[in-house]
Amino acid sequence: MPVEPDAAIEITAFDWVPGFARGFVRDLRPRWACEEIGLAYSERLINPAGPRPEGYYAEQPWGQVPVLKEDGLEIFESGAILLHLGEKDERLLPRDPQARQRAISWLFAALNSVEPLIFELSTIDIFAKGEEWAELRRPSLMAFAGQRFDRLADALGEREWLAGPFSIADIAMATVLREADKTDLVSGRANLAAYLARALSRPAFERALTAQLDAFRETPQPAAA
Amino acid sequence: MPVEPDAAIEITAFDWVPGFARGFVRDLRPRWACEEIGLAYSERLINPAGPRPEGYYAEQPWGQVPVLKEDGLEIFESGAILLHLGEKDERLLPRDPQARQRAISWLFAALNSVEPLIFELSTIDIFAKGEEWAELRRPSLMAFAGQRFDRLADALGEREWLAGPFSIADIAMATVLREADKTDLVSGRANLAAYLARALSRPAFERALTAQLDAFRETPQPAAA
Repeated sequence: MPVEPDAAIEITAFDWVPGFARGFVRDLRPRWACEEIGLAYSERLINPAGPRPEGYYAEQPWGQVPVLKEDGLEIFESGAILLHLGEKDERLLPRDPQARQRAISWLFAALNSVEPLIFELSTIDIFAKGEEWAELRRPSLMAFAGQRFDRLADALGEREWLAGPFSIADIAMATVLREADKTDLVSGRANLAAYLARALSRPAFERALTAQLDAFRETPQPAAA
Repeated sequence: MPVEPDAAIEITAFDWVPGFARGFVRDLRPRWACEEIGLAYSERLINPAGPRPEGYYAEQPWGQVPVLKEDGLEIFESGAILLHLGEKDERLLPRDPQARQRAISWLFAALNSVEPLIFELSTIDIFAKGEEWAELRRPSLMAFAGQRFDRLADALGEREWLAGPFSIADIAMATVLREADKTDLVSGRANLAAYLARALSRPAFERALTAQLDAFRETPQPAAA
């Protein structure tokens, strides 16, 4: 199993989050990548209630997870960590030059052209649920997101994965699409729904999800949270 | 001058955009990177009114700019293009392993942890200006963005650039921060304001900005726009 206390790679994760966030924290992305190639990693668990550990903001400017450490290197932001892990193995990032560039293009597309819409939708549907502005804003955001998802569906077409073989682009995009799973943005587009189901049925995803959830199991709800 | 019709690198840009977008279209990022290292590129200008040129959505799934072509490679998303250009020259991406990872981490941070807030703010202040939801939402978004900008200011501290030497991370972050220049998010934090001024005073930025604006000069407003 990739989670090993003595592994050369260390990834930070939270030891407790509220129910709606369980299974959706972004350490899921590097966990999934490690699972795809059988790469062992250790966990450094951070409690999100109260102050961060001494020096943590110097590692991760927002106080979030994940941070990856390996052989003296420190990397933050899940996209940067995926890219670093992708460089290790062609099962995560194809070596053919154009397929590689296509995977990197789609990695950024997931994080800069699709996820921002999902962030806004999550604010409306979770954090600001029931507020007047959220109810007024939701239709126009869903219309805009729908147009973008139409383009995404067109771009994917009948291909199995975004960049030819499975890659870090699919880890990024599937974890983004999954954040919209309470809407019809994905379920209303047959090829996107099939793509997401295909990604989430990979054994490596299941193991990564289990590993994230396992980290919450032993921790009681913090008094301050 | 880097804009040369016969250059090996081609970048797409728009030949017309509305006034508020002039100087802010994302081809500015690769133009700036090319200018930093004196790398020649040619422009392929796209008219944003009406249908995109045949096949353009296969190059750029959202119909946006920029797309970079070079020696048979095609890359979309400004972040992916910056990374590709960074690999060419240590003046854009340092070769020291930790400095390199720090630059890539900050590149993703600019695009996935800061720019999404600015997207939402731009919707409120430009596209939905005056709408009821926008006025109701603005205070909470500004409060959240303010917290993130506090963290960014702390992380930058008194350093000149995000990753040691100037890098693609600074091109990404400065172009993001510049999108917030009608608020006090940057101007209210002295080290961020000085950082942004330092970045925008680089001659390469000025040349890139002029090149983008030059592409609009000859094009009348499209009837459909």
